Amino acid sequence: MDHLQTQLFNKLQQKEADMIAIRRHFHEHPELSFHETETSKYIAAFYAGKECDVQTNVGGGHGLVVDIHGGKKGPVLAIRADFDALPIQEDTGLPFSSKIPNVMHACGHDGHTAYMMILADSLIELKDELAGTIRIIHQPAEEVPPGGAKGMIEAGCLDGVDHVLGIHVMSMMPLGDVLYHKGPVHTGRATFKVIMQGKGGHGSTPQDANDTIVAASQFVTAVQTIVSRRIDPFDTATVTIGSFDGKGSANVIKDSVTLEGDVRIMKEETRAIVEKEFKQILDGICRTFGIHYELDYANDYPVCVNDEPTTEMVATALTEAHIPEIKQLVECGPQTPSEDFAYYAKERPSCFFFVGAHKEGTPMYPHHHPKFYIDEDCLLIAAKSMGAAVLHYLSKGV
Amino acid sequence: MDHLQTQLFNKLQQKEADMIAIRRHFHEHPELSFHETETSKYIAAFYAGKECDVQTNVGGGHGLVVDIHGGKKGPVLAIRADFDALPIQEDTGLPFSSKIPNVMHACGHDGHTAYMMILADSLIELKDELAGTIRIIHQPAEEVPPGGAKGMIEAGCLDGVDHVLGIHVMSMMPLGDVLYHKGPVHTGRATFKVIMQGKGGHGSTPQDANDTIVAASQFVTAVQTIVSRRIDPFDTATVTIGSFDGKGSANVIKDSVTLEGDVRIMKEETRAIVEKEFKQILDGICRTFGIHYELDYANDYPVCVNDEPTTEMVATALTEAHIPEIKQLVECGPQTPSEDFAYYAKERPSCFFFVGAHKEGTPMYPHHHPKFYIDEDCLLIAAKSMGAAVLHYLSKGV
Amino acid sequence: MDHLQTQLFNKLQQKEADMIAIRRHFHEHPELSFHETETSKYIAAFYAGKECDVQTNVGGGHGLVVDIHGGKKGPVLAIRADFDALPIQEDTGLPFSSKIPNVMHACGHDGHTAYMMILADSLIELKDELAGTIRIIHQPAEEVPPGGAKGMIEAGCLDGVDHVLGIHVMSMMPLGDVLYHKGPVHTGRATFKVIMQGKGGHGSTPQDANDTIVAASQFVTAVQTIVSRRIDPFDTATVTIGSFDGKGSANVIKDSVTLEGDVRIMKEETRAIVEKEFKQILDGICRTFGIHYELDYANDYPVCVNDEPTTEMVATALTEAHIPEIKQLVECGPQTPSEDFAYYAKERPSCFFFVGAHKEGTPMYPHHHPKFYIDEDCLLIAAKSMGAAVLHYLSKGV
Amino acid sequence: MDHLQTQLFNKLQQKEADMIAIRRHFHEHPELSFHETETSKYIAAFYAGKECDVQTNVGGGHGLVVDIHGGKKGPVLAIRADFDALPIQEDTGLPFSSKIPNVMHACGHDGHTAYMMILADSLIELKDELAGTIRIIHQPAEEVPPGGAKGMIEAGCLDGVDHVLGIHVMSMMPLGDVLYHKGPVHTGRATFKVIMQGKGGHGSTPQDANDTIVAASQFVTAVQTIVSRRIDPFDTATVTIGSFDGKGSANVIKDSVTLEGDVRIMKEETRAIVEKEFKQILDGICRTFGIHYELDYANDYPVCVNDEPTTEMVATALTEAHIPEIKQLVECGPQTPSEDFAYYAKERPSCFFFVGAHKEGTPMYPHHHPKFYIDEDCLLIAAKSMGAAVLHYLSKGV
Repeated sequence: MDHLQTQLFNKLQQKEADMIAIRRHFHEHPELSFHETETSKYIAAFYAGKECDVQTNVGGGHGLVVDIHGGKKGPVLAIRADFDALPIQEDTGLPFSSKIPNVMHACGHDGHTAYMMILADSLIELKDELAGTIRIIHQPAEEVPPGGAKGMIEAGCLDGVDHVLGIHVMSMMPLGDVLYHKGPVHTGRATFKVIMQGKGGHGSTPQDANDTIVAASQFVTAVQTIVSRRIDPFDTATVTIGSFDGKGSANVIKDSVTLEGDVRIMKEETRAIVEKEFKQILDGICRTFGIHYELDYANDYPVCVNDEPTTEMVATALTEAHIPEIKQLVECGPQTPSEDFAYYAKERPSCFFFVGAHKEGTPMYPHHHPKFYIDEDCLLIAAKSMGAAVLHYLSKGV
Repeated sequence: MDHLQTQLFNKLQQKEADMIAIRRHFHEHPELSFHETETSKYIAAFYAGKECDVQTNVGGGHGLVVDIHGGKKGPVLAIRADFDALPIQEDTGLPFSSKIPNVMHACGHDGHTAYMMILADSLIELKDELAGTIRIIHQPAEEVPPGGAKGMIEAGCLDGVDHVLGIHVMSMMPLGDVLYHKGPVHTGRATFKVIMQGKGGHGSTPQDANDTIVAASQFVTAVQTIVSRRIDPFDTATVTIGSFDGKGSANVIKDSVTLEGDVRIMKEETRAIVEKEFKQILDGICRTFGIHYELDYANDYPVCVNDEPTTEMVATALTEAHIPEIKQLVECGPQTPSEDFAYYAKERPSCFFFVGAHKEGTPMYPHHHPKFYIDEDCLLIAAKSMGAAVLHYLSKGV
Repeated sequence: MDHLQTQLFNKLQQKEADMIAIRRHFHEHPELSFHETETSKYIAAFYAGKECDVQTNVGGGHGLVVDIHGGKKGPVLAIRADFDALPIQEDTGLPFSSKIPNVMHACGHDGHTAYMMILADSLIELKDELAGTIRIIHQPAEEVPPGGAKGMIEAGCLDGVDHVLGIHVMSMMPLGDVLYHKGPVHTGRATFKVIMQGKGGHGSTPQDANDTIVAASQFVTAVQTIVSRRIDPFDTATVTIGSFDGKGSANVIKDSVTLEGDVRIMKEETRAIVEKEFKQILDGICRTFGIHYELDYANDYPVCVNDEPTTEMVATALTEAHIPEIKQLVECGPQTPSEDFAYYAKERPSCFFFVGAHKEGTPMYPHHHPKFYIDEDCLLIAAKSMGAAVLHYLSKGV
Repeated sequence: MDHLQTQLFNKLQQKEADMIAIRRHFHEHPELSFHETETSKYIAAFYAGKECDVQTNVGGGHGLVVDIHGGKKGPVLAIRADFDALPIQEDTGLPFSSKIPNVMHACGHDGHTAYMMILADSLIELKDELAGTIRIIHQPAEEVPPGGAKGMIEAGCLDGVDHVLGIHVMSMMPLGDVLYHKGPVHTGRATFKVIMQGKGGHGSTPQDANDTIVAASQFVTAVQTIVSRRIDPFDTATVTIGSFDGKGSANVIKDSVTLEGDVRIMKEETRAIVEKEFKQILDGICRTFGIHYELDYANDYPVCVNDEPTTEMVATALTEAHIPEIKQLVECGPQTPSEDFAYYAKERPSCFFFVGAHKEGTPMYPHHHPKFYIDEDCLLIAAKSMGAAVLHYLSKGV
């Protein structure tokens, strides 16, 4: 094994307790997307006095960019960790549970930031031996459109960067697995809100009213044909109406209904098809029933596409690194959720990969669940994996 | 009992066998609507040489108008009988079954015309004692839009007429009952044909086709809301899609579907509501799915409205006539089918009433059924009932 | 005009200001159904010391029964007025607007009770000249199932009663009109609540969830066929889903939806058909989509049927009374809302009729509207109308 | 280039005119699936007297199996060509158009069989130099379930066979391209027929009937949710209702409707999900509307899966063969239609690949189109491609 890597892994191992402590601090003090004031200050304080360049409040928000300049010339690699939490009331019973009511790190971003800080710290210590620059992107607001990545990029966080890497810890994947997929890895997304306006009235005189619940129900039904009839069976699309807000009185015909939902696609061409059909169906059904409508249809996260050579580089690095905590490296196929890492991947050849965090024999909860749980052993695996990829990249490129 | 009525009833009784023979002749030789050549000739031949004025081929078709001029002055009363048959293969097993394949008198029009001819013959014999004119309308094509009545009226069959009466024999109402209803008694009707044109294609590549079966199915579903949500619950409307012609291959997306159906209403105001909603729904659903369509929407028979005083006159006449074969006179409420007698009723105060034809203990079949059957005793009842109404009208008016 | 009637009308006229004052008191102090404590006390206080028998807290609730025994023998006539208010925030700007937030006499029950108290008071004064007994039913809770009438009847308020009369003042009918209908005059009703339980999940993985919004939408759509295909076009039925409570998150598949609605029918036979079809459709659609459900389906108010002779008696009484404030007596046809007066009409021959309350040239608002308004001149008309009917009944019967 | 291959290619080139003549003969004399009597005889006659083993009427049908035994020991490779035509009226205007009304080689099977016969003939001439056995499978009835492959396999055509290869000429792919895909290459299929039985009746009295068109329309609508909500967005499924046979009369409620359609899937696990959901939806909707049904649901062609090593062998063979007529070798991705070659691929490691047949600048028609057309230059390309694969396989294996 490479001498530099040995040094790095030793450092990470020695700082594992710190990593966990930092993660627990964040876990106890979660902050919602775009409101991560204290988290941001905490990270900035960590880097204070270290041999790196730190920019705070990047993009008018709470993001940080930390540059670690190697002692030798080389490419610029950005590595990204996100740090926002979710509006969920924690129900894990952990001693370090969230102290903030209805806010919880239920997606593992506390772990992302903790491993990344310790990795950065270790790389700073080894920087004279590195050939190139490592840019740490501490990103806010992954969970909420438009996503923190967008603002960071607009603020220049990718200027001069050659490639980007990112990791997500996964509560439903086995601890010991590191997983990757070449090509489209996370869906792109659109969200919509429809207000349908009919005319209220007494339930016994429907002819004097215009029943919006009837119209909206036929709309929900018609929307199913987008996926069933308009999408290539070899492509991917979902259209979910997650909210049908038509609460009213039993004996009063409802005058207005609000629908909200989202769209997932795996090719940007599919995005346009869904949007066109959605609008055509909404307009057609509203004409059918004489209903007025307002539509707010917003395309947000792009499809997240892992660059093939970059992903192969990561796979090679992980294979060659012989990290003892990694049991296997798995091609896991694409994932249906969306990720705002997609914005980086749209701008630079990138790879976003996964570190399993579920310990066999323990209960398993999905991300965004009040009992979401990761085994903290995954932090060291994430740190070593990203560390190995960084070293491999700086020495051998993509 | 009135002397004249006694004479009339005696004559009718004596000619009952003739009445039945004529009915059976027609039954064996049914002719489809607008093609009643031989029937028309047979009727004309019957009147030949009798003391009455006969017009044939009225309205360019097969109708006849027979005027019986009374010996004294008085009003003009039209009484109508229809004579067309249906495209049905008879399955009664009667010895006088239809000799024409797939054509059958399955609605009793043979009986209408038979009783009417014998009644006319009897009234001709008594004409010197009558005050006024009786116009017999032998009408073709009641079963098929636009209906024979329309052409007869356009040809002037109501010119000079004051009131109009008509009878239908009813296979599902008890023999011995005569039944009537004041006000709207038969529904008005519209018929429609829709051709929906999408785009064919292979079942495995729906995105390259446009599935007309899916669109037409949602149209059928949406159409249900006309009756459920747009019609006053105290009003009457039906919208039936009786034909969905979308036969194709299992593995080929259907490019075109033809729908046919009809609409029934009981107020002319409701007709306009249904038509407007139907067109709005068709247009809206076709826009929803990007389907082209052609619509042929034809309003045909009006609502048949029995004039209240005229109907009361008929009821009084029947009550006072003490016809022994009539067991009871019944207010039967409105009937859902349509009748082109409605055209006469639109032009003149009229009454269309019913003579029961089902003998207790025998099987009962609806009109238009291959086993449709009327007890021939109903013919004499019809003749006496109409006869009594004629005499009452001529002597006492409405 | 009848001497007694002249006396009664003079008394009513003299007490018109009191009637209005009482009505305004109730209007300022409305109480919700089944919670009319103060209203009930106020009415009881009014009768204190008068020559009549007063029962309070009838049926364990707030109802009162007041018997006025005539000086001579005769039949027992119950006359009913209701006194509950609605959960509506008044928005009329009247000086005597409701002092209770979100509670309002928006259906005219304040007027019913006010005219009835003054009428009762006047009849007490004339009681020695009356032949028979007048039972005043001051009923609570007309607006909320199961309705106050039910409890009053169970408590015996109809014991010994021969006939029942009631009046509703109508904000949308012209002042000066008194209106009636023979036969079914108000719809019967059922209300339902459906909880549909599927399985939640992420919008991007529908195969792991079971989308209740999709299932409930198809249920709403299928329900339309009850009225469109299962009800005799000459009958009356509505099925309204007035509430579709499926509010959730855009990107989460909804696990549960609650629907509420009501059914109106005009014949008790139709009630059974709707209930059977509703349950069949709910069960079938839930099986279709693998959804669990709970159904609470409650038949409440019966069809309110006006007895023909009793209604004719009222019409005759009103015609013969020559009440100068009445411009016309109108056969108004049936009304789509439901009324718990139906319970009395089910037990005794009854008549429920209407007094117009809309003054020409003023804005018109429906019942249950925050700006609901009746012209107070209607109170004297109601008092005289009911008074005339009482006197006619006691002297001449039905 | 390999000496043997040069010999083979020279022979094929010399016999190109024969190949075209044979193809045109078949094209003029097409025979429907399972009725290919003359085609089968023609093929048998071709092999008569040649140094090979010929079995005819294989599997009780019209199939032939021809074994060419090489002079040396080696593996057994089956190569398959199908020979049935379609029930289509040809509309190409070609001089060698089909002489049989409504039967046409509109899928290129004439070409498959022609190139295969000439290739076999050439291989027979070179057989002494070959190491192994080549089994030619001349297969009937590819177009119609259950497919000819099934019967051939049951009759033992794969006994002793190690690998199987097949080619399809493609009218929509460019001439000069040879195309392949590793893994699932053709969808699996199920077909279904549903008879829904309600109750007929007059359009004006829906309450006495049970409208099957309404029920079937809601079924078609509900079926859309299988693909939209029950299938993993990364998987493939289509459910097409290609035939909705509900032709009837405008004014008669339809008593019965027949639906036919098919299902395509790309994983055998998906097949079970679709079947379960389809049956649940049909049963649920029929319960919803009180409809009886009969379902004939038949799983037929499996997913056709190209074995990875075998496909790589073909790709290598084609690359190394340097066939001048081949412009490029393309990984074309999976194809949505189904192929009964899937049955061979289920039993033995196989590869089914494609030869482009559309000449640039000429009109392009899909398979099964009345103007379906292939450029006959594709025949030599098919023969050389399959020849190269055979030689490569026999000398180097998979």
